[in-house]
Amino acid sequence: MSALARAPLFDSVAIVGVGLIGSSLARVIKRERLARRIIGCDASAAVRRKLKTLGLTDTATGDAGASAKGADLVVVCTPISTYAALGRAIGPKLKPGAILSDVGSVKQVAIQTLGAHLAKRAHFVPGHPVAGTENSGPEAGFADLFAGRWCILTPAKGTSPRAIGRVAELWRRAGMRVETMDAAHHDRVLAITSHVPHLIAYTIVNTANDLEAHLKAEVIKFAAGGFRDFTRVAASDPVMWRDVFLHNREAVLEMMGRLYEDIALLQKAIRAGEGKTLEDVFARARRLRRSIVAAKQD
Amino acid sequence: MSALARAPLFDSVAIVGVGLIGSSLARVIKRERLARRIIGCDASAAVRRKLKTLGLTDTATGDAGASAKGADLVVVCTPISTYAALGRAIGPKLKPGAILSDVGSVKQVAIQTLGAHLAKRAHFVPGHPVAGTENSGPEAGFADLFAGRWCILTPAKGTSPRAIGRVAELWRRAGMRVETMDAAHHDRVLAITSHVPHLIAYTIVNTANDLEAHLKAEVIKFAAGGFRDFTRVAASDPVMWRDVFLHNREAVLEMMGRLYEDIALLQKAIRAGEGKTLEDVFARARRLRRSIVAAKQD
Repeated sequence: MSALARAPLFDSVAIVGVGLIGSSLARVIKRERLARRIIGCDASAAVRRKLKTLGLTDTATGDAGASAKGADLVVVCTPISTYAALGRAIGPKLKPGAILSDVGSVKQVAIQTLGAHLAKRAHFVPGHPVAGTENSGPEAGFADLFAGRWCILTPAKGTSPRAIGRVAELWRRAGMRVETMDAAHHDRVLAITSHVPHLIAYTIVNTANDLEAHLKAEVIKFAAGGFRDFTRVAASDPVMWRDVFLHNREAVLEMMGRLYEDIALLQKAIRAGEGKTLEDVFARARRLRRSIVAAKQD
Repeated sequence: MSALARAPLFDSVAIVGVGLIGSSLARVIKRERLARRIIGCDASAAVRRKLKTLGLTDTATGDAGASAKGADLVVVCTPISTYAALGRAIGPKLKPGAILSDVGSVKQVAIQTLGAHLAKRAHFVPGHPVAGTENSGPEAGFADLFAGRWCILTPAKGTSPRAIGRVAELWRRAGMRVETMDAAHHDRVLAITSHVPHLIAYTIVNTANDLEAHLKAEVIKFAAGGFRDFTRVAASDPVMWRDVFLHNREAVLEMMGRLYEDIALLQKAIRAGEGKTLEDVFARARRLRRSIVAAKQD
């Protein structure tokens, strides 16, 4: 790669909300030298102290508006319920040509809130790096979190192609494959691949939790394959997920409706002892699983 | 450990059904020298050829009755739908003092079928090593599969304590923690920790599969955290799982009913925009997850 390609993409990047995703972004920006300067912004004083201890950002502030001032790129990595206020605080402070982006799991709401107060000539490029773990906080992040995963950008029509290209290049240098998509379409795809699975995982863990005390103790003790996977997902950040469900309500409820119909069929097959139906359904699921493995998203 | 403790536990062990679990058991028996001789039995000629290639068993046969003849221990590792016929084939061939055991995920049916035709003075000790992966077949097995996991034994009242102790010791030497439990109780605990999660995983994968073609392609492409965990579980053996649901029908349907009630509450909270309810439910699930991690079943 030429020296030019290796030059920093941005002079200064502000990361607003330095948790799992924000701190992983900070780490990969440092490692790949994607910016000359990283401004960390977090509402929590404890997190700001950790940023210093861990040396993740060059400065740390609790004021989102101040962090945005003078930055070439501001990436919001906070739960979606903060977007409206952050949009009002950050939007007007952006310098001409600056880019505002985010990493949230629901994109229509990002456009309606975070992107609604942009300064003149600033650009909004909403993004969703589809990567994560069940852990939270700046210590949980790591530079390789994004490697080999997809990043979906959902810019509105008419957004500067140059601004989109710069954000795409940031995620590419973080190791991601980048695709652009309509925000509404994104929200439906993610409802079934991510939001509904998380909802079920949370529910099933609580259903187990509500069993008679003697059964519950054993549920924990003998937690088997399937359940462990479920509980791992259910360890994710409650506030982040609350916001996802509140702000992708329609797509999630639609996909839940479809899921109910399919579960009802299986339940009926179990009740009626229809082995052939069960085996066929399970075999179909196994084939889709193999498609996913073939698509290298394992 | 004394030389005595390290002596083989059994002279000859027959493993009936040499797939993921059966072949892992064969491997750990060889590695730990738990038996002088392993007789492999599988209905599939292809599997029997693999047993020779892999050197997993000392002999290989397709005749379950013949494999049981003269064995000190017979461990059935096949799908539950085979149990009735295997019980009739194996039971009468057991020599006095021999032990018949299994590794199935539903225990009441094991007692009613596999254990129903025992030769005089032979012992039936049903077992369930709670371990596995989503892969199938003799190549998928490995000796460490059982390490650190629980094995649940569900012998009927009046079963010889010595026979129970020998089976328990086998699994302990394979690295497991062993517990005995009533068969009906086992079936309820496993319904919620394992069977229902698998049912949901299979369903959600198929719901995604049935989406409009353009959405489906993207579901595969962007398969995110939660969905990948679901699809991994859904890759498990369709026949094995068909049999689990057919033979643990009542407990599975009861737990599904409980789960429905809990999902309905969350769905209503999403529809009504009740963020507090969602956050509380998610935080509770996270706490149960932490209990499981503390119980070292992660």
